Amino acid sequence: MFQSFDALTDPTQGVDRVARLRERMAALGLDGFLVPRADEHQGEYVPARAERLQWLTGFTGSAGAALVLGSRAIVFVDGRYTLQARNQVDGDTFTIESLVENPPSKWLGVNAARGSVIGYDPWLHTIAEASALRLSLETVGAKLEPVATNLIDDIWSDQPAPPAEKIEIQPIGFAGELAGDKIARLGENLLSAGATHAVLADPSSLAWTFNIRGRDVPHTPLALGFAIHCADSLPKLFLSRDKLTIETDAYLTQLADICDPATLEQELANLASNGAKVAIDPAISADRLRMIVEDNGGTVLGLPDPARLPRATKNKAELAGSRAAHRRDGAAIVKFLHWLDANEPGSTDEIEAVKALEGFRARTGEDTQMPLRDISFDTISGAGPNGAIIHYRVTTKSNRKLGDGELFLVDSGGQYQDGTTDITRTVPIGQPTDEMCERYTIVLKGMIGISMLRFPPGTRGMDIDVIARQAHWKAGLDYAHGTGHGVGAFLSVHEGPQRIAKTGSERLLAGMILSNEPGYYKEGAYGIRLENLIVVQEPQAIEGGDIAMHGFETLTLAPFDRRLILTDLLTTEEHAWLDAYHAWVLAEIGPMVDGEVLAWLERATAPL
Amino acid sequence: MFQSFDALTDPTQGVDRVARLRERMAALGLDGFLVPRADEHQGEYVPARAERLQWLTGFTGSAGAALVLGSRAIVFVDGRYTLQARNQVDGDTFTIESLVENPPSKWLGVNAARGSVIGYDPWLHTIAEASALRLSLETVGAKLEPVATNLIDDIWSDQPAPPAEKIEIQPIGFAGELAGDKIARLGENLLSAGATHAVLADPSSLAWTFNIRGRDVPHTPLALGFAIHCADSLPKLFLSRDKLTIETDAYLTQLADICDPATLEQELANLASNGAKVAIDPAISADRLRMIVEDNGGTVLGLPDPARLPRATKNKAELAGSRAAHRRDGAAIVKFLHWLDANEPGSTDEIEAVKALEGFRARTGEDTQMPLRDISFDTISGAGPNGAIIHYRVTTKSNRKLGDGELFLVDSGGQYQDGTTDITRTVPIGQPTDEMCERYTIVLKGMIGISMLRFPPGTRGMDIDVIARQAHWKAGLDYAHGTGHGVGAFLSVHEGPQRIAKTGSERLLAGMILSNEPGYYKEGAYGIRLENLIVVQEPQAIEGGDIAMHGFETLTLAPFDRRLILTDLLTTEEHAWLDAYHAWVLAEIGPMVDGEVLAWLERATAPL
Repeated sequence: MFQSFDALTDPTQGVDRVARLRERMAALGLDGFLVPRADEHQGEYVPARAERLQWLTGFTGSAGAALVLGSRAIVFVDGRYTLQARNQVDGDTFTIESLVENPPSKWLGVNAARGSVIGYDPWLHTIAEASALRLSLETVGAKLEPVATNLIDDIWSDQPAPPAEKIEIQPIGFAGELAGDKIARLGENLLSAGATHAVLADPSSLAWTFNIRGRDVPHTPLALGFAIHCADSLPKLFLSRDKLTIETDAYLTQLADICDPATLEQELANLASNGAKVAIDPAISADRLRMIVEDNGGTVLGLPDPARLPRATKNKAELAGSRAAHRRDGAAIVKFLHWLDANEPGSTDEIEAVKALEGFRARTGEDTQMPLRDISFDTISGAGPNGAIIHYRVTTKSNRKLGDGELFLVDSGGQYQDGTTDITRTVPIGQPTDEMCERYTIVLKGMIGISMLRFPPGTRGMDIDVIARQAHWKAGLDYAHGTGHGVGAFLSVHEGPQRIAKTGSERLLAGMILSNEPGYYKEGAYGIRLENLIVVQEPQAIEGGDIAMHGFETLTLAPFDRRLILTDLLTTEEHAWLDAYHAWVLAEIGPMVDGEVLAWLERATAPL
Repeated sequence: MFQSFDALTDPTQGVDRVARLRERMAALGLDGFLVPRADEHQGEYVPARAERLQWLTGFTGSAGAALVLGSRAIVFVDGRYTLQARNQVDGDTFTIESLVENPPSKWLGVNAARGSVIGYDPWLHTIAEASALRLSLETVGAKLEPVATNLIDDIWSDQPAPPAEKIEIQPIGFAGELAGDKIARLGENLLSAGATHAVLADPSSLAWTFNIRGRDVPHTPLALGFAIHCADSLPKLFLSRDKLTIETDAYLTQLADICDPATLEQELANLASNGAKVAIDPAISADRLRMIVEDNGGTVLGLPDPARLPRATKNKAELAGSRAAHRRDGAAIVKFLHWLDANEPGSTDEIEAVKALEGFRARTGEDTQMPLRDISFDTISGAGPNGAIIHYRVTTKSNRKLGDGELFLVDSGGQYQDGTTDITRTVPIGQPTDEMCERYTIVLKGMIGISMLRFPPGTRGMDIDVIARQAHWKAGLDYAHGTGHGVGAFLSVHEGPQRIAKTGSERLLAGMILSNEPGYYKEGAYGIRLENLIVVQEPQAIEGGDIAMHGFETLTLAPFDRRLILTDLLTTEEHAWLDAYHAWVLAEIGPMVDGEVLAWLERATAPL
């Protein structure tokens, strides 16, 4: 199993640890210290060593921060984690604040004592975050002070070592472009942006550029490391040689000057003192990188990570791989949905469902000689009211039977060498209510609306988010998350910069993979989410039209549950889309299954 | 007539004037000078005295700027004015640049000579504009220098005097809130924002706050002036006493300390030297105001104009007035549409149509004892290919017959004491083509989509713009303007901050009036635009829903041309909306017309 169901923490663990942190703060003359949920690369998945927030507070969510002051301590989490944080942290030690409405920078700008000194680890905050913190502390006459080593590391005696898993090469058949060509492209971009160097701080940019994958963090095939690109010479790749074999060392040596990660600071300082103009992405890069450059006389150019758009716009080989991964994954999902249907209501539970699904993915991977390398995130398996918790993680404590008359929401994905998948389906256990059917159909209308949309070049994700919500709004409903996130090619299941959301300011470009996942959540009752992955297509002329328009190609292959669809609520076009989608699912997945599963699939995909 | 049809300028006029400007620049040691199309209040409509760009270059558009350097001169205009500028300015003297992609700040950041000094009149550029200019000139080692008097004023011998039209009081029955109460509200807001004073630089904020209207600029009932609001005393109102009668003087004296506009700079300097914290909206206020405060030791707080949201969210009396104005205006439009229909194809022209329409508005105003005070902008009256020019202004030179088989687009509005209107209809002259009907119906679908939309509190204009474009995009079409602008209450027909557009970042609040005007333009052939004004309604519960949702109330009353509607392309809901709208038009306007016009209206509004 790639997933555990244990409760990872205990609310009592923080009491003593906060006391020890305060001793350390006092020794260093600090009035406060910030503990974000972050590593040196600011990614969503971090190695065990970097789970400092969890160790200190007990909070296990994927985003958040603690602020420990002399006599109080606060845990900042966003809306999806408020309830979870209340359950996981000690209420006498910590208060909970909103990470969105009142983040540490805002909170400190109101509450920090004049003259106080707040410590932060500049490796764990982005340049943009640190700048906001600095500014608001200054307005109240307080100060932000970088620390040389993280205070948690000083007191966490059994802190895990940094990961050093072996990297592997992503074959050209899947990557579609030679690493050398990518490096040359980035070098040209550097020059045209007026930079002499660029720091790649995002390991998924590293992975994409060098065509390598790793196993340093859960669920995302990253090798943690940094690179410094040069406009006119080989890049320097800061990656522990423990991660290399003779073969991968030989491969990378052709592409880069491989350096010990311990020398990164010194190398960057040397470049800076020679007057380097270093491009660093302030939104995703550690403030420490900026400090090194600026303290040594270099210039920081705040430019977006040069690999982010090339990485986001998948090439033909990556798209072909993703289509193959989605066929394989679709077959596993179909087997799982058939298995679910074959169970009597109340006879299985959320954890068993997760195990069954992973089993189907693993076996289908073996059968097709493209093994499941990992799941792409902890499967969200929510029955009844648990389905309404948007980022639910089932544990042995929360585990729930799939009861008669309930909805069951399952959001999961697989990592295969040829692609990353992410799919959500919602199924009825027994007989659904009319309300469940009506709301399922509304969510489905939103998903189909995005699927059918045509849009002109230049359209941003924020321009089209409402397409998935029109039907909701008309019925007085909504959902409290974006409609879609970017997805990598055997990389991060949450990949920037593309998004379909009110904050999605990036233009949608051909080749970008996105999720299309509207939902509806009735607290304490049920959750509905329907998710397909889609790819932005090249603009294509429309007969009689003036402008070639983008559209979306759907990648995900699995039926929508016909027991929950009110066809009367669909327009003729939506109905036609759905029948065509189901026919395509049968055509693609039918040959990969047989017997009862095939018979089930034929029924599930028959015209509505 | 409130509108002229003369060609106002001649391309040759700029040659000699630019030469004289260069002499003046040389005398002052300037290497360049900026001439924006702006007055001291940065509004869209400016008094004749402020038409410096037109005087210098011949360009008559409502937005643009000239940059005159020693050996070259550039006119910057946006896309809608490119063709017009080419026709109106002398091509040997000026080159044309894009105001959007390459505005003066960007152009100078690339092209200004190191060491050069570019002069600007700080009264005619906003703080934000001047800051962008300064920054980009600094990056190339050049300098932005404010001038004491505008160089155009120095050489424009017959420059008109500043306007000094009498102001009038907007009665409480239409304004709905006493000026004293508004002033108290603004004072409270000032305090809570940490300011001691606020400068009102936007004359429509002045008009709203003091419940006054003026006649200083065409088509918008503004009295040009400034106010300084104080947190703890009467505001100072800088308005020429020439604009007051005994009665209006007595009225305003109760509300404000009336000051000679010539003393504004000194008063602001005095406040600043006493340590005032002055709120100034950097997006709409002259850079000169910032300079005065900062040069005299005060602090500028860059805050939005405090009157903009209260002004934008209309109260009950303002909405009642607007509804009455729209009934009256609708009756005039119906008479006009009947008149159009009664003309044989080819028997009338664009100018005659404008005259007829103004005549119907004026007579309907007289009949209802609420006279037409002005048109709200120069009527856009475009037959055939002229309809495809989004901001077309008909002149005796461009005037065109309404020919058989053409579409005729007419976008117009009236200023009445109870409200400002803005309506666009497109009608066929003779028999339209299938393509015209198809595209008209697509535009209509977009307009109906916005009209029927429900949306949750917090929704911004940018979130919903796509609703009006979905049908366009599906057909490979689009339109190169936003879907809606804000509209004032007997004030500016283009009023901020509310917009429905990709740049509309302001939340839509109950009481905001907006236009709803998708279009389609086929260059060289025809233009289609359909425009109703709409009001954001208070959120209302939806049966069975979770969230009370806003919706739009439609204000505009006039039929859509049934000869251009393909009912097969409408959804059942769109069709029902249209029939209900037409029934409402008949119910409201029917009693205001009779005879042939009523018979025409009954036919025009019959169910489709």
